[in-house]
Amino acid sequence: MSKGIKIRTASIADRQGIWKILEAVIREGKTYPFPRDMNQKDALDYWLAKNHNTFVAVLDGEILGTYYLRPNNLGGGSHIANCGYATHKNARRKGIAKSMCKHSLVQAKEAGFTPLQFNFVIISNQGAIKLWTAMGFDTLCTLPKVFDHPELGMIDALLMFREL
Amino acid sequence: MSKGIKIRTASIADRQGIWKILEAVIREGKTYPFPRDMNQKDALDYWLAKNHNTFVAVLDGEILGTYYLRPNNLGGGSHIANCGYATHKNARRKGIAKSMCKHSLVQAKEAGFTPLQFNFVIISNQGAIKLWTAMGFDTLCTLPKVFDHPELGMIDALLMFREL
Repeated sequence: MSKGIKIRTASIADRQGIWKILEAVIREGKTYPFPRDMNQKDALDYWLAKNHNTFVAVLDGEILGTYYLRPNNLGGGSHIANCGYATHKNARRKGIAKSMCKHSLVQAKEAGFTPLQFNFVIISNQGAIKLWTAMGFDTLCTLPKVFDHPELGMIDALLMFREL
Repeated sequence: MSKGIKIRTASIADRQGIWKILEAVIREGKTYPFPRDMNQKDALDYWLAKNHNTFVAVLDGEILGTYYLRPNNLGGGSHIANCGYATHKNARRKGIAKSMCKHSLVQAKEAGFTPLQFNFVIISNQGAIKLWTAMGFDTLCTLPKVFDHPELGMIDALLMFREL
């Protein structure tokens, strides 16, 4: 864990802190396939869904990151984990995403998942791709022109995968 | 369309006919990552979900197939379609899956989707893989050991993709 960053299970009291992070990510529309006009309720209902185990990364008492861990599939595919991560727009380069990813690998393994799969890593999100690659994720394939980026137009996304 | 097979939008009155098909698929647990003990309500709530456009394939007045068409992603990824197909266990080799796939390609294109993506085609489902390949789908990657098959244990699944 980077210096001072604490990661803990999210609670109802964290909703505003999580929304502050998600609102910027959603309105910007560059890193997740969420509708850019998605409202607070829908965003938090999704991020904190019943089958999501949601965490917050706290530094100096402020929520600067959040992620969820969930099964990527049900039934015969329920051993595959999936995560979504978001970092506060003013808290980049503090090691928060890396701390959350490390934490999620431990959490996923403890929960009994065997691989962790990212279904949709947008190719322009080079920081994330570099970090996931450094954390041991392989790119299994490139999904061609699956994301309509607000500035770049139709671009690719990667499916990334790591055994736990 | 194969001889006599009619494909139309599903209605509330089709729930029992759809369930007959899904029940066998779910209990068998070999072609979809659904919990094998999933109940009728949960299965139909999923198959006929609000964001699913659901169809039935009818032959001689009987529902022998059903499929849904939906966006595979939201926001910047909402131009990607996804479908799930199921055929009555006693109606294999009648061209029903092929008819539904052809129908879905037209429907997806008309709805404005540009590619159709199958996220999880289980490797033991060779009939489906052969058919999707013949219908122009490419295998973009193999997801290793992502499906716990009731007889074969952990096996692979394919991500298949086709421009519309």
